[in-house]
Amino acid sequence: MRPSGRAFDQLRTVSLEPGFSRYAEGSCMVRFGNTHVLCTASVDETVPRFLKNTGLGWVTAEYGMLPRSTHSRSDREAAKGKQSGRTQEIQRLIGRALRAVTDRSAMGEKQIKIDCDVIQADGGTRTAAITGSYVALHLAFQHLMQIGALKTMPLTDQVAAVSCGLYQGNAVLDLDYDEDSKAQADANFVLTGKAGIVEIQGTAEETPFSEPQFMELLALARKGVTELAALQKQVLGIK
Amino acid sequence: MRPSGRAFDQLRTVSLEPGFSRYAEGSCMVRFGNTHVLCTASVDETVPRFLKNTGLGWVTAEYGMLPRSTHSRSDREAAKGKQSGRTQEIQRLIGRALRAVTDRSAMGEKQIKIDCDVIQADGGTRTAAITGSYVALHLAFQHLMQIGALKTMPLTDQVAAVSCGLYQGNAVLDLDYDEDSKAQADANFVLTGKAGIVEIQGTAEETPFSEPQFMELLALARKGVTELAALQKQVLGIK
Amino acid sequence: MRPSGRAFDQLRTVSLEPGFSRYAEGSCMVRFGNTHVLCTASVDETVPRFLKNTGLGWVTAEYGMLPRSTHSRSDREAAKGKQSGRTQEIQRLIGRALRAVTDRSAMGEKQIKIDCDVIQADGGTRTAAITGSYVALHLAFQHLMQIGALKTMPLTDQVAAVSCGLYQGNAVLDLDYDEDSKAQADANFVLTGKAGIVEIQGTAEETPFSEPQFMELLALARKGVTELAALQKQVLGIK
Amino acid sequence: MRPSGRAFDQLRTVSLEPGFSRYAEGSCMVRFGNTHVLCTASVDETVPRFLKNTGLGWVTAEYGMLPRSTHSRSDREAAKGKQSGRTQEIQRLIGRALRAVTDRSAMGEKQIKIDCDVIQADGGTRTAAITGSYVALHLAFQHLMQIGALKTMPLTDQVAAVSCGLYQGNAVLDLDYDEDSKAQADANFVLTGKAGIVEIQGTAEETPFSEPQFMELLALARKGVTELAALQKQVLGIK
Amino acid sequence: MRPSGRAFDQLRTVSLEPGFSRYAEGSCMVRFGNTHVLCTASVDETVPRFLKNTGLGWVTAEYGMLPRSTHSRSDREAAKGKQSGRTQEIQRLIGRALRAVTDRSAMGEKQIKIDCDVIQADGGTRTAAITGSYVALHLAFQHLMQIGALKTMPLTDQVAAVSCGLYQGNAVLDLDYDEDSKAQADANFVLTGKAGIVEIQGTAEETPFSEPQFMELLALARKGVTELAALQKQVLGIK
Amino acid sequence: MRPSGRAFDQLRTVSLEPGFSRYAEGSCMVRFGNTHVLCTASVDETVPRFLKNTGLGWVTAEYGMLPRSTHSRSDREAAKGKQSGRTQEIQRLIGRALRAVTDRSAMGEKQIKIDCDVIQADGGTRTAAITGSYVALHLAFQHLMQIGALKTMPLTDQVAAVSCGLYQGNAVLDLDYDEDSKAQADANFVLTGKAGIVEIQGTAEETPFSEPQFMELLALARKGVTELAALQKQVLGIK
Repeated sequence: MRPSGRAFDQLRTVSLEPGFSRYAEGSCMVRFGNTHVLCTASVDETVPRFLKNTGLGWVTAEYGMLPRSTHSRSDREAAKGKQSGRTQEIQRLIGRALRAVTDRSAMGEKQIKIDCDVIQADGGTRTAAITGSYVALHLAFQHLMQIGALKTMPLTDQVAAVSCGLYQGNAVLDLDYDEDSKAQADANFVLTGKAGIVEIQGTAEETPFSEPQFMELLALARKGVTELAALQKQVLGIK
Repeated sequence: MRPSGRAFDQLRTVSLEPGFSRYAEGSCMVRFGNTHVLCTASVDETVPRFLKNTGLGWVTAEYGMLPRSTHSRSDREAAKGKQSGRTQEIQRLIGRALRAVTDRSAMGEKQIKIDCDVIQADGGTRTAAITGSYVALHLAFQHLMQIGALKTMPLTDQVAAVSCGLYQGNAVLDLDYDEDSKAQADANFVLTGKAGIVEIQGTAEETPFSEPQFMELLALARKGVTELAALQKQVLGIK
Repeated sequence: MRPSGRAFDQLRTVSLEPGFSRYAEGSCMVRFGNTHVLCTASVDETVPRFLKNTGLGWVTAEYGMLPRSTHSRSDREAAKGKQSGRTQEIQRLIGRALRAVTDRSAMGEKQIKIDCDVIQADGGTRTAAITGSYVALHLAFQHLMQIGALKTMPLTDQVAAVSCGLYQGNAVLDLDYDEDSKAQADANFVLTGKAGIVEIQGTAEETPFSEPQFMELLALARKGVTELAALQKQVLGIK
Repeated sequence: MRPSGRAFDQLRTVSLEPGFSRYAEGSCMVRFGNTHVLCTASVDETVPRFLKNTGLGWVTAEYGMLPRSTHSRSDREAAKGKQSGRTQEIQRLIGRALRAVTDRSAMGEKQIKIDCDVIQADGGTRTAAITGSYVALHLAFQHLMQIGALKTMPLTDQVAAVSCGLYQGNAVLDLDYDEDSKAQADANFVLTGKAGIVEIQGTAEETPFSEPQFMELLALARKGVTELAALQKQVLGIK
Repeated sequence: MRPSGRAFDQLRTVSLEPGFSRYAEGSCMVRFGNTHVLCTASVDETVPRFLKNTGLGWVTAEYGMLPRSTHSRSDREAAKGKQSGRTQEIQRLIGRALRAVTDRSAMGEKQIKIDCDVIQADGGTRTAAITGSYVALHLAFQHLMQIGALKTMPLTDQVAAVSCGLYQGNAVLDLDYDEDSKAQADANFVLTGKAGIVEIQGTAEETPFSEPQFMELLALARKGVTELAALQKQVLGIK
Repeated sequence: MRPSGRAFDQLRTVSLEPGFSRYAEGSCMVRFGNTHVLCTASVDETVPRFLKNTGLGWVTAEYGMLPRSTHSRSDREAAKGKQSGRTQEIQRLIGRALRAVTDRSAMGEKQIKIDCDVIQADGGTRTAAITGSYVALHLAFQHLMQIGALKTMPLTDQVAAVSCGLYQGNAVLDLDYDEDSKAQADANFVLTGKAGIVEIQGTAEETPFSEPQFMELLALARKGVTELAALQKQVLGIK
């Protein structure tokens, strides 16, 4: 029995609110239950130095949590003067996930900077961030096409993510904080709309897990991402 | 004529949404037109070292802007590894404003940490932050009274803030970004519900201003703060 | 009765010693009683990036206190690895004050860097710094005119500053440390030689102050700045 | 055909040299071909604050590369003043891997600090580091048992790691730098001696990979870790 | 012929102005020609952690240059966020020099913090700083004896310092900036009043120097320090 | 009697292992007894800004200690976010020593970056580092000559270094950690193959030392460096 009463293979209530931000070229407020992440995509006409004169673009991401997005207040990273290892790990993951479905030669020498800011956190912020960032990125590319700065859509597939874990011996989909803090194992899956694997990060919290258990988690993730990808299509008005 | 079509002494549409955050002891989403600031108040059982064994409490504030809250993206302070001078100036101002209406001996040795995070910025973020933080702080103190951790309400008065400025030669109330970026002079007024002056920060952008001009700004600010204080009372359900 | 025995509207003994530094293009040691600040103006042929190819110059300021300029030793900011919020607030104020009386198009694309280093502190270091920096800046511009690098003097007016406050219920001019640490309210006024207001920063330390009280402080400030501006003229040999 | 001429399921020549360091309580120089990592385990009698009075111990890791361990020189992190996101990701991974096979209640309130310093890098430094750190940690625990500071060995299983990837369409074991820099996908597997999964990190570099491909990588990893675990046993003289 | 017209074995005009600072327990403005350094000694009742409960005191030093103490402006270390290697080298040297003549058991568990701030720099700032700091330290200890906090003077000898160098092939005493910037070799000597060697730092700028040349420099240093030590005695009123 | 049983004028067993690193243009593992330092020389085609268009090259050095190279673990400088004063002092010394025997005009506008990483520390790491870096630098220059990037060898002489000190009243050569931690005085000598003095750094730890004592240390250093220089020649195959 899950604390939330959800079925083992049931996502939380997910919503994607495109165009949340007044100024960003693309934006999406993504909500997985009580986890709320604001994703914005900002167009920058310069690329990192290592891409100068290559004809290739870049997509990068930054991630942050508001200090009181969590149950108890965390110190503000700007005040501490550095980003934690966890923050850096997450923002690197988001960037890799989005680049895996982007044809960077179709972008030209442009950069899209994604900002994922957690307004409220109840587990699964990184997977929500990837799912919402895809929408923000898509909108930014659409904007660039509308103003004539891009000829074709550089996105080659959809990408979305979800966490799964072993909770009281059972494989469950989309862990919330209550489950996450007690899970024996925990894995984040980043998958494409066409069912390809982009990234898998699985961690045994206490005791190692077995291959069949891992396969169960992967199957749940496929189900979840299929639903998330359908929702992305719906809010973007694509078929 | 103001770009927004407002009268010279007219505030933007202001809303105060108390209890916005699921976890914070007190919170308020404050909106002055397109300026949106999330204010949370977190209770901390420890006080800064200089207050140990004094019987006095402390109220402090931190301020941040989401990188794409603004028209063009700004660098993330956590990634740069330090807070700008502007950020520090603003968070010090918010803290002083709230402490000016707090009886710190009535708090006991507790600390309230206010976080003001700008979700969207269209001018006047610091004055919106002060106005909303008062609501968040009030709610946190109410919470402490309800759980029996405080006997009396430590707030001695209300506090709210608004900016005024000289725009095309005229004194106007509550500058938005369009006006602010072209104003000849600009002043932030932090006033109490009982009309006392807590803080005045006036700056001539290009050419110095005169005493009568300054008096006009102060009169507008009194009008604005009276309206803001009434709204605070309304959302807090106090008379 | 003031601790120093001064009349309510009496400045401390003020001296301005131009040319204190052997190497700087302009310099002034300013003393307000026991507050001593060394102000230097250094010419830099480059402007900040945002002014490249605008034809405009820039005046900026940095501020620091020697660790034992104060009654008890403060930590050295260079050793701590960052400047405090207070330091940044003050150096931003000094820069704004000087730019308000500078015709930046008359400077050409040059930068003057002002350094204000507090050798001894007894209250009012920021207002002394502004008063002395004006002299250092004037001398640096004179130097540039003498060597033919400038055609006209870019300064359009004088600028000086003084603090006033409510001490034991009375408005007093030019607070020293004894008064400042016990004042109910405290305001810094930056005014021009022609009586224009450049900057006002007023703060109620404990209890809010009233509009008539504020007007009294402003009147004292006018008197004080008139005397300071006369002294500036005298040491600069201008009429 | 692999650049090194190895079979698809063949590890590089691996050696584990225990006791490499004269001073550390446990140490091991691990070599996977031209990748050489010095792993030391240092005993610290204090635990992190969050474990005080819990009776539990802690194992943590730090990771660094000598500036010229790589083909071209990288900047020294100590000189840059911060550790990269990659460094932090790796050291967090090493710590988690070792804690997954440690009974922290059997340690008592002690901390073991693992340092993994890359003397020479030819791909797979993080997996070599995990494999060698296990040996260093085992030796440090043995030392604590010999001096009577521990009653029982806190390690509950072995742990070792290896990378696998898709190189020119084929699944290969233990990527060296030549392969790693051209691989389509790349996964690090941390497995126990009893074949449990501790951590999986799989990343598609360009194009997503499929579930069957992933299964192939996992099978190779099992083979590799079995060989590594046998070598660990041999150098530690355990059965 | 030296640029200043001084004889080869002639110091610049040296003055020591004790009690320069109003607040510090000990202070001295030291001037070696155009090199001016303000030295203060501040008493701190706490010792560094490694000396707790040892009965021993500590003397430490910090060093800084005002940004425009030099011919062209240098960046402010507090603004850059770190002290240069040169600054750290110098402040470590000053601390060692003073500790070499201090009986730290006679101090009790107290700390004296020396601050050496260069107001104007014309070569030899570190040697001037050591010479002046001795006076400041002596005065701080005298103060502690007068208030009954110390029974005996913890200083066991005098200490002073001077630089010598090879300028146009000749050994010269007390290099100024003109000489220093063109010297072939340069050595700083820290010697006691009783002619003991506390520290020698000799560096060949271009071409190595010989033992006889080094002996010449040492002889000049002895002459210079004898004069400096006499001046220290005079201003301190000791025989 | 020395703890190691060595004669007063006896070096530890010294070895120089050239070509230790697979990738660096020049490298040498230097061992003075239990002190082991890996020195690499990396060629960089860019020079520091102040040398652009001067035709001169540059040699610089960085130094670090592995956290557990020492008897007890030290904190990792990369994790602390800054290099200690000691580290900076040492790396500046190594750079100066090597530049003193380099004809920088013969290098052209190239830079050689030396990295000295202490794998194991038993006293004398800086002098071992200088001795080994000379070999690494020589090899890097040889490599540049072999590939035709340099016409002549820019090294004008050999350079090596050794520490000497007063241990139990006697002058001894090449202090190890046991001696160093109890020495009354301690000096590092950097000398050339032709017996010139490049750098002397002598420090009295407790009581000042006399000129004759200093002369004894210098004589021992000459003997030691003569032996080190012969060993350098041997491993480099030069006469």
